[in-house]
Amino acid sequence: MSSTVGIGLDVGGTKSQAVLVNMAGEVLAEQRTPSPHDTSEGAGTALAGVLAKQIADLCDENGLDPVTVPIGIGLPGLVRRSGKLAFAPNLQSANGVDLPTLLREAIGATNVHVENDANAAALAEHEWGAGRGIDDFVMVTLGTGIGGGVIANGELVRGGSGFGGEIGHLIVLADGVLCPCGVRGCWERYASGGGLQRMTREAAEAGRLPTLVERKGSIDAVRAEDVTAAGDENLGEAVALLREVGRWLAVGLGSLAVILGTNDFVIGGGLSSASGHILPSAREHLREFTMGYEWRPPFNVQLASLGEHAGALGAALVGMQRSA
Amino acid sequence: MSSTVGIGLDVGGTKSQAVLVNMAGEVLAEQRTPSPHDTSEGAGTALAGVLAKQIADLCDENGLDPVTVPIGIGLPGLVRRSGKLAFAPNLQSANGVDLPTLLREAIGATNVHVENDANAAALAEHEWGAGRGIDDFVMVTLGTGIGGGVIANGELVRGGSGFGGEIGHLIVLADGVLCPCGVRGCWERYASGGGLQRMTREAAEAGRLPTLVERKGSIDAVRAEDVTAAGDENLGEAVALLREVGRWLAVGLGSLAVILGTNDFVIGGGLSSASGHILPSAREHLREFTMGYEWRPPFNVQLASLGEHAGALGAALVGMQRSA
Repeated sequence: MSSTVGIGLDVGGTKSQAVLVNMAGEVLAEQRTPSPHDTSEGAGTALAGVLAKQIADLCDENGLDPVTVPIGIGLPGLVRRSGKLAFAPNLQSANGVDLPTLLREAIGATNVHVENDANAAALAEHEWGAGRGIDDFVMVTLGTGIGGGVIANGELVRGGSGFGGEIGHLIVLADGVLCPCGVRGCWERYASGGGLQRMTREAAEAGRLPTLVERKGSIDAVRAEDVTAAGDENLGEAVALLREVGRWLAVGLGSLAVILGTNDFVIGGGLSSASGHILPSAREHLREFTMGYEWRPPFNVQLASLGEHAGALGAALVGMQRSA
Repeated sequence: MSSTVGIGLDVGGTKSQAVLVNMAGEVLAEQRTPSPHDTSEGAGTALAGVLAKQIADLCDENGLDPVTVPIGIGLPGLVRRSGKLAFAPNLQSANGVDLPTLLREAIGATNVHVENDANAAALAEHEWGAGRGIDDFVMVTLGTGIGGGVIANGELVRGGSGFGGEIGHLIVLADGVLCPCGVRGCWERYASGGGLQRMTREAAEAGRLPTLVERKGSIDAVRAEDVTAAGDENLGEAVALLREVGRWLAVGLGSLAVILGTNDFVIGGGLSSASGHILPSAREHLREFTMGYEWRPPFNVQLASLGEHAGALGAALVGMQRSA
């Protein structure tokens, strides 16, 4: 790394988080701005303008030169190896955007590197977080969907397309539930917040959540958040549903374990901390879904440690490493 | 690489193939011996004796010193990073064997390195075969089961356990058909020779193979080989079944593509060449099973080029690379 600090931006569907980071992974300054969804000026123009201002402000306040400072940007979608965003379902205003070029034009920045947000988080956990010192692991981000990043032989796996780590779309049940991506049976339809929401509705309709239906007044009123909250009180019907999500989580973890030969998983995202029942259930079911379980080293399914800063930290790391 | 030649051994359930290879991947000498299944002297003792003789003979005939020549051994099972064989379903006499130690004791060999046979084949295809120049691809070996090897960032993915590349056991249908490995719904129960055999029996019982049942005289007499042979004559009922296998092949390829970000696959093994219907069907169905298909580079599902020598060539490569 040629610089002792870097700027990382984690762009989501609602906000863009910008951080100034040093090589120890410490956040020296931070800033948030709503993400633009304006498409009137062409793909990504509004987004580039917002990010340019965030970067310029952080540089101004900290005596840095935007032309030379390493900048990394994590985007919520398919990022090509070239740094162009191919597709982002929740940030469609930015599809096709070439941020390195737009930011060079806007503020003269020459060291801009783009990566998928979950891949960036995996890199950050590897460098500074729960995956530190582990050369082979998978970061699994349990949110509305499942994001992720694969670290193998100490390096991020991007593949020829650059789209590596889209683990939420590995197929766990061929011809199963339709995913918004167009494929049936994707893992994230079963083991994410969205999966829990679907299973909550189905369970309520099937009469498997009588207490929650009574509390909320109707079948339609019962939400995934009610199930995770009731799980925290150990309500049996909620625990059973959360354990089912955990079992589906184990299906995908088992597949990743056999493909990659890793037993190490770092779990992040909102759903990972929302319930104490999902991860224990996943751990218990791993034997059922992993070929050769008894010959493998013990599984290590641990929580991520960098929290909501992981994506921005990883983006800064991408900027610092690729500018070197 | 410190040596200009290496010895590679590909040990299967029925025979051990030994080759002398140069750095251009040319086979300079070759030898085959039946694999021993004798367990009376302890795990792997008989196997080590057979391999020691093969190595000593190859060295004698070619003026090489078994103490210093690089030796690689491909084994059909779960090989730990230490080189010990954890488990091999079709070579149970060798479970737990530590070949580097036994071969040092037997013939003084000091440069012995062990790898899974399909991983070795993937390395050989990467260095000398269809995967040459491709830094990210998956080798898929379609035999009775599905073996494989994952190359990412130009390196073999072994994972912390060393068991990476066991792609035949990724789960494509949770709670599906029971695999001999103990897990339900493994890919190789659907898209391999064994999968075709099961589907052949089921199709014959369901009346979907009337011509073949008539030809063979009974439902029980119809085998997978009859289906592949009838596929070569373009018999409709056989083509339909082979295309179904191809569709299942696409399910796993799609999952591997999203996890690893690769669109490159090298297909080897007996079933890959036995039918012209499986791979075309797989290629056609990839769109159905791959998130973001339209944003990805074109898939490249090509045949392996090193044939039956791939495993032994890759084993020699492992020996040469790790002795360097």
